[in-house]
Amino acid sequence: MRTFKLTLAYDGTNYAGWQSQPAGNAIQDRLEAAIARVTNETLRTVASGRTDAGVHALGQVVSFQSETQLPPEVLCRAINAYLPADIFITNVQQVADDFHAIRGVAWKRYRYLLSNSRTPSPFERSHVWQISTRLALDAMVEAAGYLTGTHDFKSFESSGSPRQSTVRTVRLLDVRRGPSAFSYGPTMTDDATLAIEIEADGFLYNMVRNIVGTLVEVGRGAQPISWVADVLAACDRRKAGPTAPPQGLYLVRVDYSS
Amino acid sequence: MRTFKLTLAYDGTNYAGWQSQPAGNAIQDRLEAAIARVTNETLRTVASGRTDAGVHALGQVVSFQSETQLPPEVLCRAINAYLPADIFITNVQQVADDFHAIRGVAWKRYRYLLSNSRTPSPFERSHVWQISTRLALDAMVEAAGYLTGTHDFKSFESSGSPRQSTVRTVRLLDVRRGPSAFSYGPTMTDDATLAIEIEADGFLYNMVRNIVGTLVEVGRGAQPISWVADVLAACDRRKAGPTAPPQGLYLVRVDYSS
Repeated sequence: MRTFKLTLAYDGTNYAGWQSQPAGNAIQDRLEAAIARVTNETLRTVASGRTDAGVHALGQVVSFQSETQLPPEVLCRAINAYLPADIFITNVQQVADDFHAIRGVAWKRYRYLLSNSRTPSPFERSHVWQISTRLALDAMVEAAGYLTGTHDFKSFESSGSPRQSTVRTVRLLDVRRGPSAFSYGPTMTDDATLAIEIEADGFLYNMVRNIVGTLVEVGRGAQPISWVADVLAACDRRKAGPTAPPQGLYLVRVDYSS
Repeated sequence: MRTFKLTLAYDGTNYAGWQSQPAGNAIQDRLEAAIARVTNETLRTVASGRTDAGVHALGQVVSFQSETQLPPEVLCRAINAYLPADIFITNVQQVADDFHAIRGVAWKRYRYLLSNSRTPSPFERSHVWQISTRLALDAMVEAAGYLTGTHDFKSFESSGSPRQSTVRTVRLLDVRRGPSAFSYGPTMTDDATLAIEIEADGFLYNMVRNIVGTLVEVGRGAQPISWVADVLAACDRRKAGPTAPPQGLYLVRVDYSS
């Protein structure tokens, strides 16, 4: 029995999320079916975390054990050949037998993309949150500063999957504007894309989407910058902003303690 | 009877192209059906040019005549309400009765997007040409210089829709790298997107896609920079590079002589 670590990217638009569903329309179902075609084994995969319906991944990490004798590079190409075009394995490695995609997570990074263009774009509707009101970047950057570091993030946890401790360490929370390749302008320099990148040692349920929804309230001018500090201190989900929609969220990478 | 100028963006992925088809699966069919719901008229629209299947638009211009008494802004919102999510009107104006979306064109601008990342992206497969070989930007920029100005572009015209004169004036041909929001890297600074922007007083059939296919040959190192000058001088389609695929092409804007 060998243990494999697989890194994969997927467009979550047409799936019910990561976790296997009776109807078979989850990313996990497609991946396990493709692995079964290659290895002739019925096996279970474990992902670093369950992404919800409509959420995407650039670097989801999955572990599984198999009897296959195929080298990792061959396994990668062979499984990709049986996957639909919106799921793509970028790397397969053989790892130590005690590797487990959930247990050893040290840091996880998510990106949230907003399109802050006056007019919505038909190209990005499944891949960004479109907000036509001009968002104040400086205010959002300053508000994000309150959330960096080790805090109780209970105000940013949606109900449904409670954790024993709601303390997490956010070591990066970066808000920036960038150009959109799909901008309507004559050039691509209008900085219509707004990206929020966040790295932490773990995330509560919907934590990224709740942080984004809260920072957007500040960006819109609906709340002052200091309100974010009050929200954090309240340890009460009802104080925070709304949950940002799923289609702007990307699991970017997962780092493991070696 | 009033004349309207309508600007629209569309994702061409799921359509047979601009031009009306018996099966009804063209952009023009969807637009005319939506206009009919609003105005109760069966009318014909004219676009600045026919985009092929899979080609997109950020600023296609369409003209039509209607008896409607609705103000342009209301017309815009009402027609959008009957359009699918991948077709979106960004502007409607009432214009002089002699306005015609084809006849008055002074300049047209196209953008072609390539994803030059080592691994293909499941997010961009319908919106860029994915080339994993690293392209030499400097060589492409230099080669593009041969194509700026007034020339006979016969080498870049595909058969199928011949024009009387094949002389055109290219007033801008810009090749640049930019970041991709979907980059796999930990940040969005890997410059995985390559955009070729081209503006001319008119385009021969497949001219942009043939120019892109030719510049990519230089970028890959398959041909020297000076080869592009030879291709241009030959006035022979067989000398140029292959036609770039449709999904990277965007009609960006159309300017009219007033």
